[in-house]
Amino acid sequence: MADLVSLDEVRAAARRLRGVAVRTPLVPFPAAARNGISVLIKPESLQPTGAFKLRGAYNAISALPEAERRRGVVAHSSGNHGYAVAYAAALLDVKAAIVVPENAPAIKTDAIAAAGAELVRVAPTLAARTEAAEHIARTRGYAQIPPFDDRRVIAGQGTIGLEIAADCPAPGPEAVLVPVSGGGLISGIAVAIKALRPQARVIGVEPELAADARESFRTGTRVAWPPSDVARTVADALRVERVGSLTFPHIRELVSDIVTVSDEEMLVAVRLLALRARLVAEPGGAAAVAASLFRSARELGVSQGPVVAVLSGGNIDPAMLAGVLTSGAGSYNR
Amino acid sequence: MADLVSLDEVRAAARRLRGVAVRTPLVPFPAAARNGISVLIKPESLQPTGAFKLRGAYNAISALPEAERRRGVVAHSSGNHGYAVAYAAALLDVKAAIVVPENAPAIKTDAIAAAGAELVRVAPTLAARTEAAEHIARTRGYAQIPPFDDRRVIAGQGTIGLEIAADCPAPGPEAVLVPVSGGGLISGIAVAIKALRPQARVIGVEPELAADARESFRTGTRVAWPPSDVARTVADALRVERVGSLTFPHIRELVSDIVTVSDEEMLVAVRLLALRARLVAEPGGAAAVAASLFRSARELGVSQGPVVAVLSGGNIDPAMLAGVLTSGAGSYNR
Repeated sequence: MADLVSLDEVRAAARRLRGVAVRTPLVPFPAAARNGISVLIKPESLQPTGAFKLRGAYNAISALPEAERRRGVVAHSSGNHGYAVAYAAALLDVKAAIVVPENAPAIKTDAIAAAGAELVRVAPTLAARTEAAEHIARTRGYAQIPPFDDRRVIAGQGTIGLEIAADCPAPGPEAVLVPVSGGGLISGIAVAIKALRPQARVIGVEPELAADARESFRTGTRVAWPPSDVARTVADALRVERVGSLTFPHIRELVSDIVTVSDEEMLVAVRLLALRARLVAEPGGAAAVAASLFRSARELGVSQGPVVAVLSGGNIDPAMLAGVLTSGAGSYNR
Repeated sequence: MADLVSLDEVRAAARRLRGVAVRTPLVPFPAAARNGISVLIKPESLQPTGAFKLRGAYNAISALPEAERRRGVVAHSSGNHGYAVAYAAALLDVKAAIVVPENAPAIKTDAIAAAGAELVRVAPTLAARTEAAEHIARTRGYAQIPPFDDRRVIAGQGTIGLEIAADCPAPGPEAVLVPVSGGGLISGIAVAIKALRPQARVIGVEPELAADARESFRTGTRVAWPPSDVARTVADALRVERVGSLTFPHIRELVSDIVTVSDEEMLVAVRLLALRARLVAEPGGAAAVAASLFRSARELGVSQGPVVAVLSGGNIDPAMLAGVLTSGAGSYNR
């Protein structure tokens, strides 16, 4: 069995991140009252890069030996991790090259370029991204900052779990709902939550159209979904077709269940977050909030909460957000 | 001279508000870099009612003697205070009647009704609102919860200042920018900031179309602007035509300056807050953020910051937000 990330590694990450990552609050979300569950949102969309990824990226880069850092870093990402690496590298005065799929939204690639990083565009598959990043690492000596399958990245994301454990009012969360893409976010959070609040269920949430992690979790084998299928979900942040070889044992060991949400449910969540919690979310970032709205207490294995839903990112295209606000989507409980 | 609210009254409010008001974080806002000022946003839009008003309303109601509380409370408000009183009254199991101007946005009046309060609609002037609230207080024995000109309300809003003083990284804020309507928010914040961070400038921000507080501040006399003028600003939350008789001495004594922003500048701020800070703001709520973007360091009397801009509310009509997102507004620094 793989050696899981430890609570000590997460605590070390929290020390590095002090003054860099925003300590996001837990925000009550009364809109979820329909299923009788009390919901608190952890809005990682308020990080300076608009997503939780800053925590893992900054922790990984700042832990590099000085000589390695000086050469530069390279990352591949569907968007939010790339921006996080670009932003963290700029803070630490390190050169960065970011490999992005050619279908990544302009709002994400523009931000990466504005942070001063070099953009490298490739085909929208994990294989193409991995290969391009490896090529840059090999030829230029840049250190790879993986999007999820890395101890320092997982430990950085785990600092969210430390904050939830500290901030959730007694008796603590009944469950923590976390969007799943490559699995780094849920792995880190699960390490912290299961160590500090062992009675809380950690539940992954995936788009129906990219539910490879749920299939892997249920079958006990790490499976990949075809990139062409995964690409169909509106949740661009969750279009990874397979969880990592390091994140998978974390998920098997520490996660209670993985549930799915539809694209429509994520878009309703985006609308309700804007209007009732005054938070801008991207569709994939709203996956866990959608589960808190649309999955029943029984499906989530909870009684009444509080349930913490991690809002993982808010980098949505302005036209998409405007469309969601003016569409009928959101006829939820009035 | 009036007896100003004390730091002790603000600290007592903070104890009452624990577990009720969200302890909002300070969020970096790099969009303001154009004028060279480092800006931190205090997003009071994340309160469960979408605005800071919950702090003052809850503090005032919870401080009422039990016998008074049992009869009920009445408030008049352009929207956010009314919702706050309705919400706080429901938390404390107290009956509430809310007097609103007939031009208040539906998003605000709907929320008041959903919180279980009785809605009373009157003409959009302070005089009409005051009279209706006094009538209900007289005939039913309800306790009035004033929107701003009240020690307990001012003390509640002041808890924002305590949090800014505690959370702003060393050497503390160079200035705190605060939207001004009736003056309760800036009075409370100024009490806390001038006691704990006396070197920080507290600066009020008003719409150009409702700049009665600036005129009062400059002339030393509390003046009223015609309601028909004030009604023209898009900032519905800031349409009060005169600051209070209790808030005015706080402003004269503790505030360094009052600056103005245009309607267009507030709308650009709404757009940039959504896209670069992932925060939903209403136009009046974004007034201080607009000043951080559009007033120069010299106009604000600061060198480089950090400047804290209070985002006071986020209850914007969905169609207006969608329009701002898709309009050209926001061509700020790219």
